[in-house]
Amino acid sequence: MKVDGTPYRSIWLDRDGWSVRIIDQTKLPWSFEIARLTTLEDAAHAIRAMLVRGAPLIGVTAAYGLCLALRRDASDAALEQAAETLRATRPTAVNLAWALERMLAKLRPAAPSARVELAYAEAAQIAEEDVAQNQAIGRYGLELIAHIASGRPIRILTHCNAGWIATVDWGTALAPIYMAHDQGIPVHVFVDETRPRNQGALLTAWELGKHGVPHTLIVDNAGGHLMQRGLVDLVLVGADRVSRHGDVANKIGTYLKALAARDNSVPFWVAAPASSIDWSIEDGVRDIPIEERPASEVTNVTGRAPDGQVMQVRICPKETPVLNPAFDVTPAHLVSGIITERGRAAASEGGLLSLFPEYR
Amino acid sequence: MKVDGTPYRSIWLDRDGWSVRIIDQTKLPWSFEIARLTTLEDAAHAIRAMLVRGAPLIGVTAAYGLCLALRRDASDAALEQAAETLRATRPTAVNLAWALERMLAKLRPAAPSARVELAYAEAAQIAEEDVAQNQAIGRYGLELIAHIASGRPIRILTHCNAGWIATVDWGTALAPIYMAHDQGIPVHVFVDETRPRNQGALLTAWELGKHGVPHTLIVDNAGGHLMQRGLVDLVLVGADRVSRHGDVANKIGTYLKALAARDNSVPFWVAAPASSIDWSIEDGVRDIPIEERPASEVTNVTGRAPDGQVMQVRICPKETPVLNPAFDVTPAHLVSGIITERGRAAASEGGLLSLFPEYR
Repeated sequence: MKVDGTPYRSIWLDRDGWSVRIIDQTKLPWSFEIARLTTLEDAAHAIRAMLVRGAPLIGVTAAYGLCLALRRDASDAALEQAAETLRATRPTAVNLAWALERMLAKLRPAAPSARVELAYAEAAQIAEEDVAQNQAIGRYGLELIAHIASGRPIRILTHCNAGWIATVDWGTALAPIYMAHDQGIPVHVFVDETRPRNQGALLTAWELGKHGVPHTLIVDNAGGHLMQRGLVDLVLVGADRVSRHGDVANKIGTYLKALAARDNSVPFWVAAPASSIDWSIEDGVRDIPIEERPASEVTNVTGRAPDGQVMQVRICPKETPVLNPAFDVTPAHLVSGIITERGRAAASEGGLLSLFPEYR
Repeated sequence: MKVDGTPYRSIWLDRDGWSVRIIDQTKLPWSFEIARLTTLEDAAHAIRAMLVRGAPLIGVTAAYGLCLALRRDASDAALEQAAETLRATRPTAVNLAWALERMLAKLRPAAPSARVELAYAEAAQIAEEDVAQNQAIGRYGLELIAHIASGRPIRILTHCNAGWIATVDWGTALAPIYMAHDQGIPVHVFVDETRPRNQGALLTAWELGKHGVPHTLIVDNAGGHLMQRGLVDLVLVGADRVSRHGDVANKIGTYLKALAARDNSVPFWVAAPASSIDWSIEDGVRDIPIEERPASEVTNVTGRAPDGQVMQVRICPKETPVLNPAFDVTPAHLVSGIITERGRAAASEGGLLSLFPEYR
């Protein structure tokens, strides 16, 4: 999508044809800085230090990290060693492991001399597939927005960041919004700040603003009130994991917005690529494990001080105990439907299987 | 309640018998500082600069402000002038105007020479009535907690600060919790941080901690998940205004917690003194006006920097537009009941009138 009028992706090959460019997301929204990755170590650092974030983008960065490693040494040993280094950067990232396995499957059988070229081709392929997948989600979601459209702006509430900078381009929940905006359908996005990590305030507000999509930042507490007053036409969120029956694990607080949407007859849709559907879990509320993250995410808030310095401040007494569950699960019965790259489905086993019959 | 073992009120008469002591709440939770008010100007400043906050405490501070003014000049003109000065400190504070009118009704008919003594007596009376009212709310709420009690800690979720430092003592929603704790009924409080102003993280966590009540700070997004996992036995919140039919206006986000409580069969109770019931409003969702407050409350967060300095940091891009509704309205059908100083009532016109038949 665009940053001040210039189209960007979140990762791309430099004009030199081999080094890799990324947006340093640790600097957002305070400054827009492009980093250049030239070695395996650069790529591993970018993932570990979260210069890149979001499952698809992490996967593509790892794939390109392998390319950079092979330029230096394309032997079997070096290949396995490089994959191991990259895998260890974010050990719980499923998409990271998936991308590396896909690369290895392609590269192991090849002669070392052919590996560099093969690797770049496969990494580019993974990136293009992500873009195509998000475009498909965007198109199926756009139909929902177009269906509501009535001349006045369609008001959409979103939570966290399911935008283009979490993917290679377009994003998931934000893809339909960008498409509507680009086609001249007026939209207005209410952006939940999304405590504790404030991805809404830091990232979603930034990317919508830079692309020129009208939006308003609200605290996480405000969405119910807005829906009650008839100010929201549609809730559109991403997903970390969707159960076989359509229960949706997403950033903590999503469930509260789903309850408010139901109470006020506002459609609540979830954008979820097939890779986020966990066919092995039936009852998501009961069986999707919820990560508890460090207390410091709750006790400390990152922001920019009046002198321009980006820093953390503590927002509670120093001895206050904290609980920090990172996700919650919205039961399927509160979900109007799920938007995948194959189309829209009811949030149910039958609905999902109608799009993905191979999991019957 | 106690601060590190020493009992305090939020306002009291100094041992000199005439000057007034308050806790400087602008310094909480970073430091515990007692301020001394000796003049009308001191009292007006304390209200205006929010050294004191919370409707009951503001009212009592204004009453004592009149006492301090009369010590200097007890003439009719000085009395009216002082009341005017105090009334202008927070023009929309209903309780402030109410306390001043009550004082004036007592003082106007009296001879100037008798006014100082009369004023101190009436101010003390207003303070004592607030304490008694909150104790009554505490006792009626305690019965709810005692009813659930089963040996293990009763887990109570609260939103914002309805604690003793918003009143003269005990608080409203926290009064039953302090009473349970003091009586040896084990309680554990989940404290919503309560964005945008973070009164939960700053004040509720502080006062519970200082009194020794076990508690855990959570982000506003987390309460639904905790209820879904069976970790909350009771939700207990205060109220800014209650409609004749039992709809409850309270800090933004309360409605979302009420929805989650209903979805998980968790009792949702509201502590509300009679003074917060607005008998003239029937449909609170439709007719209670909701204040929109400055964007800076959302864009900036106050906290303590690593160097100890208390400061504000900006948490979003500098050009991001913001909407900041300060309250929301929880419809009566989501409220298990209302705890007043006269007892507990169903959240309905019939329920409230059974306790307050004079409003039939």
